[in-house]
Amino acid sequence: MYTPNSPIGIFDSGIGGMTVASAIKKILPNEQLIYFGDTAHLPYGDKSKESIQKYAHAITEFLLKKGVKMIVIACNTASALAFDITKKTVGESIPVINVIDPVVDLVVKNFKKGKIGVIGTKATVNSTIYTQKIKSKLPDSKIEEVATPLLAPMIEEGFFNNNISQTIINNYLSHKRLKNVKQLIPGCTHYPLILNQIASFYDKPIDIIDTAMCVAEKIKETLTNTHFLSTINHPEHHFYVSDYTEGFEQSTRIFFGSKIKLEQVLLWDAL
Amino acid sequence: MYTPNSPIGIFDSGIGGMTVASAIKKILPNEQLIYFGDTAHLPYGDKSKESIQKYAHAITEFLLKKGVKMIVIACNTASALAFDITKKTVGESIPVINVIDPVVDLVVKNFKKGKIGVIGTKATVNSTIYTQKIKSKLPDSKIEEVATPLLAPMIEEGFFNNNISQTIINNYLSHKRLKNVKQLIPGCTHYPLILNQIASFYDKPIDIIDTAMCVAEKIKETLTNTHFLSTINHPEHHFYVSDYTEGFEQSTRIFFGSKIKLEQVLLWDAL
Repeated sequence: MYTPNSPIGIFDSGIGGMTVASAIKKILPNEQLIYFGDTAHLPYGDKSKESIQKYAHAITEFLLKKGVKMIVIACNTASALAFDITKKTVGESIPVINVIDPVVDLVVKNFKKGKIGVIGTKATVNSTIYTQKIKSKLPDSKIEEVATPLLAPMIEEGFFNNNISQTIINNYLSHKRLKNVKQLIPGCTHYPLILNQIASFYDKPIDIIDTAMCVAEKIKETLTNTHFLSTINHPEHHFYVSDYTEGFEQSTRIFFGSKIKLEQVLLWDAL
Repeated sequence: MYTPNSPIGIFDSGIGGMTVASAIKKILPNEQLIYFGDTAHLPYGDKSKESIQKYAHAITEFLLKKGVKMIVIACNTASALAFDITKKTVGESIPVINVIDPVVDLVVKNFKKGKIGVIGTKATVNSTIYTQKIKSKLPDSKIEEVATPLLAPMIEEGFFNNNISQTIINNYLSHKRLKNVKQLIPGCTHYPLILNQIASFYDKPIDIIDTAMCVAEKIKETLTNTHFLSTINHPEHHFYVSDYTEGFEQSTRIFFGSKIKLEQVLLWDAL
């Protein structure tokens, strides 16, 4: 049974969601995190809806068995395609937070009466979920979504804060449909690591959402309102992956900000 | 039971191996191809050895059921990590061709008495298989392997023959360990699509292996020697994937050179 001192369950296709975990750690340092990265199926951005839903269902069951008090889908692609199935798997018992709704709420709240741009994986952009959700609240708004599929592997391979990454970022942001955006949603949990480089592209400041921090604030608000904030300081977090490699373990430091030990759990592939 | 007119089975982590399929089609137009792309687990370059071996075993059993007369592992990572398990799964009945041995033989045959460079995924490079195999034939040779993990997703996302891809390629090839190479092995089945851009990096011509064509020549030689060349012209090839998306189907044209219809087969994930 979960209590305020139970852990928060977080999952992602891989290690990008650790930017969200890192933001939670920053503003909720007492909380214990149980993270699952589906590295066997990474990246989700190119996978089909059906596959992503199967994976999300299995991961959610794993996290529920760990006794989590909340589930955070720290992946835009899974948030776009598997939020409903995750909520169905969870039932009414605990809250499920995705990385899209808090961002949509923030963009709507700070609406600049100008074009809203969204960048993300093919799967996220093809789902048009940002457009649908923003339009439901701001029917007259103009939203342009552009797929930027090379950005996540680029960041994972350590290309950021350098000329190559800036060239790739500039190339994507120069897309004519993103011209004159007033607000930009970096719709992938990898992108908090390139916020400065995204900002560098623009001549004058525009509203670029720090999605990881925005989601962490939503988690804090939810736990506060339900009186489910942890009352003790937990000694350690747990990070599980569906396929362990040393490379991932090394990369986690970039995303989480401190050293992590990954544990492998086989949820499928009973071959 | 297989006959000379049975198909050739080919597998890869995704669609990169289609450069090999395309080379086979070019020099062996009568052959029928059965291709399996493990798009549910793509890319293999970041996966663990154990996982890749499990996947290769299941795919090989699938191809054997299709009655293939030969199996081609059209993926460097799987060739490096799962050649033995594939041969064990196949037994003595039919030949198994990987994409590494024919290339090693060619490099040794054309040895320039200078440094040999290898570029590929992290998994391929970490396996040091090229170094081991070349050293066993040329003990005094100097081989340098450098991981170039962004090249495969770069090509898959359509970044080639442009400034961005040239910048990324130049950055990788400028690695000090690759300085003054006389022969270069582009050790990933995606890379035949950037051979010209790799060549553009060098001031004077060096020996850059067309690995796809080299493997296709080896297949032709093997089928010729065993009198297993097809005697009829087959109407169509078959392309299976473990996770279907429209995006993959569109990308296949770049790799195979003509339009392809992908069929989804679920070999695992019985969730």
